[in-house]
Amino acid sequence: MGTILDFAKQHIPTAEIKEVAIAEGVDFNWLLKEVAEGRVVITRNINHSIKPLGIGNGLRTKINANIGTSPQHCNLDEEIEKAIMAKKYGADTIMDLSTGGNLHDNLKRIIQITDIPVGTVPIYAVAAQLIQNDLSISQLHPDDLFHEIDYQGKLGVDFMTLHCGVTKESLSKLQESERACGIVSRGGSILKKWIIETGKENPLYERYDELLEICKKYDITISLGDGLRPGAGADANDRAQIAELVILGELAKRAYKKGVQVMIEGPGHTALNQIETIVKIMKNLCNNAPLYVLGPLTIDNAPGYDHIVGAIGGALAAYHGANFLCYVTPAEHLCLPNIEDVKNGVIASKIAALTADTAKGMKYALDLNLNMSVARKKLNWHEMFNLAVDRQMAEKRKNESESKETDYCTMCGKLCAVKMDL
Amino acid sequence: MGTILDFAKQHIPTAEIKEVAIAEGVDFNWLLKEVAEGRVVITRNINHSIKPLGIGNGLRTKINANIGTSPQHCNLDEEIEKAIMAKKYGADTIMDLSTGGNLHDNLKRIIQITDIPVGTVPIYAVAAQLIQNDLSISQLHPDDLFHEIDYQGKLGVDFMTLHCGVTKESLSKLQESERACGIVSRGGSILKKWIIETGKENPLYERYDELLEICKKYDITISLGDGLRPGAGADANDRAQIAELVILGELAKRAYKKGVQVMIEGPGHTALNQIETIVKIMKNLCNNAPLYVLGPLTIDNAPGYDHIVGAIGGALAAYHGANFLCYVTPAEHLCLPNIEDVKNGVIASKIAALTADTAKGMKYALDLNLNMSVARKKLNWHEMFNLAVDRQMAEKRKNESESKETDYCTMCGKLCAVKMDL
Repeated sequence: MGTILDFAKQHIPTAEIKEVAIAEGVDFNWLLKEVAEGRVVITRNINHSIKPLGIGNGLRTKINANIGTSPQHCNLDEEIEKAIMAKKYGADTIMDLSTGGNLHDNLKRIIQITDIPVGTVPIYAVAAQLIQNDLSISQLHPDDLFHEIDYQGKLGVDFMTLHCGVTKESLSKLQESERACGIVSRGGSILKKWIIETGKENPLYERYDELLEICKKYDITISLGDGLRPGAGADANDRAQIAELVILGELAKRAYKKGVQVMIEGPGHTALNQIETIVKIMKNLCNNAPLYVLGPLTIDNAPGYDHIVGAIGGALAAYHGANFLCYVTPAEHLCLPNIEDVKNGVIASKIAALTADTAKGMKYALDLNLNMSVARKKLNWHEMFNLAVDRQMAEKRKNESESKETDYCTMCGKLCAVKMDL
Repeated sequence: MGTILDFAKQHIPTAEIKEVAIAEGVDFNWLLKEVAEGRVVITRNINHSIKPLGIGNGLRTKINANIGTSPQHCNLDEEIEKAIMAKKYGADTIMDLSTGGNLHDNLKRIIQITDIPVGTVPIYAVAAQLIQNDLSISQLHPDDLFHEIDYQGKLGVDFMTLHCGVTKESLSKLQESERACGIVSRGGSILKKWIIETGKENPLYERYDELLEICKKYDITISLGDGLRPGAGADANDRAQIAELVILGELAKRAYKKGVQVMIEGPGHTALNQIETIVKIMKNLCNNAPLYVLGPLTIDNAPGYDHIVGAIGGALAAYHGANFLCYVTPAEHLCLPNIEDVKNGVIASKIAALTADTAKGMKYALDLNLNMSVARKKLNWHEMFNLAVDRQMAEKRKNESESKETDYCTMCGKLCAVKMDL
């Protein structure tokens, strides 16, 4: 028995690594080494029958779509539809962030219907329960949190965000800071409140070895959450964020030593000129573990269009080394995303990922771009539609125009540069 | 008499420079020097009564929206609506690229209703006329093109794209190249066709001094078009593109010497890793003249979403030195944009411009982001809506959700990190 990481460290080829090597078109032995050294994780809970997914150095940039109910908007069927939509447009993973309704039933159904890795933030379930019962966050019992993690592991959750770095130490740096937006991570704010109100240390930090045992049992990939991530460009790369990161680096190393796969979560709101810096210091401090970023958002004032802002930041982050992009939808900062938001968020992230993979010279991306360009030169609309990131949309726009039947379009008509240059 | 550039070279303060210095919040003497040395242009035709607009080094990144009829879709009222929409969401300039209907009537009306600079590509009008009369491009008479430029100058066009660098020399480099997409610039393909069919040199190049005289008369800013810009990532930064650029650099110098304001047009489709390179070599070869880019598009296969692709490329280009972003709409590569496309294109470009200006540390951008972040921390929705890039959209999304009346939103409900961290 052992995790994928345990086997890789012993140079034992597992089926999962073979499968990922084929899916990514990379050398098996090279991949084995990347996994063995913690630069690539392969997410797949032993209780979830899915195609294992590789995330990390040298692999295609992956994207995640968050779904999940909230107490204000709670309709599981809608969330299932979102999961299906997300996968259709290219999400590699789904995170269930439900906080409304029967959370365990939600999660079971989502795990059941998906054939891609599912992630969660287990503290949400525990905190949501407290709120549903009109209890305060300070009444959160650490054992309940650990039971929840174990239970979700048993259900088959493939990766979990665990905010282990929100500690008395990192919070002391936050208190000294003059942030515009304080804490914007739900997990981070729950833990801060709990630590301040109880005077105790973060149990996910204090009982980290116990946590590792649970994760090891199901081969859950830990996603070390950044509870102190900046929620404003003005707060980016500050001492609180970096203090937490230093702790995450230590914890990543401990997970790795125990044979537990681990990735690191990153910002957040970060101006374009600071993205390379944070990506590189994160990789450096965390043993080059795979980096999972949210956005980053390069400006703060585009609610309704944050999928575009996140695509800019995500493209640059992935180019500089981030491996996994959490999508941002047009609903960010405003409301729970609807199905159309999910679609738009996934497509924007997909564009960011493809932008980075193209810039890194990855063959699949260069081929895709080149095939599209050749189809364009031939005015082969059928092929252009086939290769488009959203086939239906491209086809609809062309076919609803006055130039449905012609090989040129309504933009240039017969003054089509491609036609004239044939 | 003289152009704004002539006066600036003589250190004579003109009203236009004062006005731009105030609008941009920059030092007047510094701006005078930037204009005098050709790093900033101030677009304003002597026959167009508008607020003069500064474009170039050290100033806020500007954005342009293209409008205009095509023979397949020709409704001037709709184009006027697009111009109004574009300005509402922050376009700094409008280009009328009409090729359908009565082009001069279109242009007159557009100049009349806009109070921001208007640009054109005069060769479109001449070529469209030929096509309307079933004549071939080879029948284009250079004198007609020069008359058109003069006529449009008289009407008040503030800046013109002139593809002076598509010459026998640069075309010879194109022929040697193995481009996926050949020429994708309409102006470029018209001139290539004309040069090949007539065996003559590009009149905009051969009679460049005459062109400068016309531009000088009305103080038209020349936008030296990149007729050989890449239309595929695979073609970016190739010898044909750079050969044309070398010519544009020589022509920019000649314009500058004659007191004609000039900017340089840039790509086009360019992968993320090649953007900094092309921006820097363009600046270097062209006397640091203001750089006007189209996109750039970092991938090729996202028709329907090219405004997002263009926002990624535009943000990075502007961060590295591009000064003026031509918007790309979701309709790019598919059809003539509709009004909604124009809105989405302008907003995406605005996000790119603000991303770059934030990253460059420009005060207006940092203030805007910080004010939004402070409003967010205070859960001051009214202020958040006020500061949003699209106020109506942000307000609509929040107010149509179940959390219309609450200070938290349907994303997190009472688990709102900001509320918990208050």
